[in-house]
Amino acid sequence: MKDLDDIPTLMRAMGAQARAAARELAFASAARKQAALNAAADAVWARRAEIVAANAEDLAHGAARGLSPALTDRLMLDEGRIRGIAEGLRAVAGQKDPVGEVIAEWDRPSGLHIRRVRTPLGVVGVIYESRPNVTADAGALCLKAGNAVILRGGSESLNSARLLHACLVEGLRAAGLPEAAIQLVPTRDRAAVSEMLSMVGVIDVIVPRGGKGLVGLVQAEARVPVFAHLEGICHVYVDRAADPDKARAVVLNAKTRRTGICGAAECLLVHREIAAGLGQQIVDDLKAAGVEVRARGLTGSKAAEDDDFGKEFLDMIIAAKVVDDVEAAIEHIRTHGSQHTDCILTEDDAAAERFFTRLDSAILMRNASTQFADGGEFGMGAEIGIATGRIHARGPVGAEQLTSFKYLVEGDGTLRP
Amino acid sequence: MKDLDDIPTLMRAMGAQARAAARELAFASAARKQAALNAAADAVWARRAEIVAANAEDLAHGAARGLSPALTDRLMLDEGRIRGIAEGLRAVAGQKDPVGEVIAEWDRPSGLHIRRVRTPLGVVGVIYESRPNVTADAGALCLKAGNAVILRGGSESLNSARLLHACLVEGLRAAGLPEAAIQLVPTRDRAAVSEMLSMVGVIDVIVPRGGKGLVGLVQAEARVPVFAHLEGICHVYVDRAADPDKARAVVLNAKTRRTGICGAAECLLVHREIAAGLGQQIVDDLKAAGVEVRARGLTGSKAAEDDDFGKEFLDMIIAAKVVDDVEAAIEHIRTHGSQHTDCILTEDDAAAERFFTRLDSAILMRNASTQFADGGEFGMGAEIGIATGRIHARGPVGAEQLTSFKYLVEGDGTLRP
Repeated sequence: MKDLDDIPTLMRAMGAQARAAARELAFASAARKQAALNAAADAVWARRAEIVAANAEDLAHGAARGLSPALTDRLMLDEGRIRGIAEGLRAVAGQKDPVGEVIAEWDRPSGLHIRRVRTPLGVVGVIYESRPNVTADAGALCLKAGNAVILRGGSESLNSARLLHACLVEGLRAAGLPEAAIQLVPTRDRAAVSEMLSMVGVIDVIVPRGGKGLVGLVQAEARVPVFAHLEGICHVYVDRAADPDKARAVVLNAKTRRTGICGAAECLLVHREIAAGLGQQIVDDLKAAGVEVRARGLTGSKAAEDDDFGKEFLDMIIAAKVVDDVEAAIEHIRTHGSQHTDCILTEDDAAAERFFTRLDSAILMRNASTQFADGGEFGMGAEIGIATGRIHARGPVGAEQLTSFKYLVEGDGTLRP
Repeated sequence: MKDLDDIPTLMRAMGAQARAAARELAFASAARKQAALNAAADAVWARRAEIVAANAEDLAHGAARGLSPALTDRLMLDEGRIRGIAEGLRAVAGQKDPVGEVIAEWDRPSGLHIRRVRTPLGVVGVIYESRPNVTADAGALCLKAGNAVILRGGSESLNSARLLHACLVEGLRAAGLPEAAIQLVPTRDRAAVSEMLSMVGVIDVIVPRGGKGLVGLVQAEARVPVFAHLEGICHVYVDRAADPDKARAVVLNAKTRRTGICGAAECLLVHREIAAGLGQQIVDDLKAAGVEVRARGLTGSKAAEDDDFGKEFLDMIIAAKVVDDVEAAIEHIRTHGSQHTDCILTEDDAAAERFFTRLDSAILMRNASTQFADGGEFGMGAEIGIATGRIHARGPVGAEQLTSFKYLVEGDGTLRP
């Protein structure tokens, strides 16, 4: 049982679970998400009597607190409205899945082929008021877009929201998706709202849905949005199936062409099976080029300390490590990367696909130097920087507007001259 | 001479000038922006000796403060680098202008034709460090995208930045664009950075460009971004050239179909020349339908108070006012609107074009009910709300990524059933 009095601890725990769920949702199949939403709709309809009963409690509290007729009407759920909620869930289930859509695709004179594809935003926080149906609508839309969501409903509708949330969780369970994909803040304490606004790096965007009071509360604590330009802690993973010549040339270019730019490689990951051969060869190439290699499991210039991983050297220094496989490489990058630009060197399409779908860096590359992370090289002309944020939305915000994109860059040992 | 000690007052003044400039830039022609950038490039090259001299002062300060060789190199400007800056300005001038581009366009069964077009973000704040060339690059990119920009450069490069900024202003002046389109914070005081982050509603987005220290400072004060869902203070402007039947039907639908939704009309504006005739007829229609019309210049249910304008009634109440022309309507909407959804009723393409280009509401409509402001009606399926924010960017942030979009909706007296 969570301690509902310690809001920061409660929210941090929910946030951590949401991030973990978001990582799974990012590559959950469209069919699975659809199944979860349809199962949730079934649950809502099957449990309509329970929902009406819970709603009656909310209405009683409301009456006791002298809730206005207008708000009471918003709050009220009858069988007709519950049918509407279930139909709403089925409608979202039936919508086109936006995740993975190729938004744009082009080739560059450099030989690069670039695709821009839709990805989830990550973790969405929805702060709303008395309408209980928002619990279902918002939860469904966020799930459809592959986002984990933390719902903070109006205190008047907490009982109704709890039951609707339970139905959504039933759907997630039935479809084998993480239950933490849709969480409901279990307290009426308004401190939860301020806490959510301060959870930078945990919640990716807040969607306030309600009247003046709520929007005012949110705006009061808001800051001007920032196009986050995090560090470029770029990783290059040399897979078991890497082409040796391409791998040697790309790593050297990614680290040494220019060391002071954000697209410079800062960490080399090598598959265990080719560590002694190709891996050590690449490390030797780097050392011969004057790079200090801080290595683990390889013979570098010196042994790597823990804090060499996840460090932006912007210098002739690189961290290097042996990993068991592409999964371990992905896990390392999730832990130590900055979601800027990460690269896989492999001739194995399955490994590349895994790298491209499981990671959510702004730019993911295959067989190309991370130094191509540049507006000019992308054919966009001048740039003001590489944003690692995820936000974009205007006008009606449907599932598609709750997504972002990433660049999938493929080359063929392509070097930046 | 501004008081450089009173940072809040200084920044507020700069912000107000930037917003005014942004309104003009939003519809400045591509040719004019291009001319400004080329003229700025000429100025940079013509004044290269002055720039080198100013840079020498910065280098002297840096040396006195023991600036590292790496930072000193970043800071240094010689004729070669100045040529690079001028060429960079010409390159941006030559890029395709993103503003006004039709991103998407579709028809709806309702008969609506919808276009999504690019618009500037508004006011961009750029916070950067020692590289003086960022002053020119960032200023140029923001201008290209039709944004006003407030530049806050590194204290080490203030003298160099001042001169480069002066060249940009020369370009603006030469092209007849507002000089406040590109402003430079004239103080080294770090309080300006915190101030910029807190200028919600004045600065639309902050672009931090620099190392760990700067990004850390910005992140420390950051909050989770919010998909702003402001009030729907929707305006309907009945132009002199409005079709009477369409106008009467649309206004009635926009106000009375449902009064509790954010797309409901809250204010009626009527062109002076048709006020006594069609205008009064529409007011009488509304009164006959049971709407309380708080009017100015028309015979309503009662006289409008000042605070009836810019109010979201969400009820059978509407404010009404006579305006001199489309310009006055635009000015009223800029002052009292919430940039949600605003509509013009006219058969005059020139008036509609003016309304569409001069206003920056998330949704602008022509001859259609504001009640169409809905994801389902737009063909997007379910929605979580109507965002009135402007932000979206990921990966390389070029001019295009510094823009947002708006929906231009045209109908033919189309009503929502």
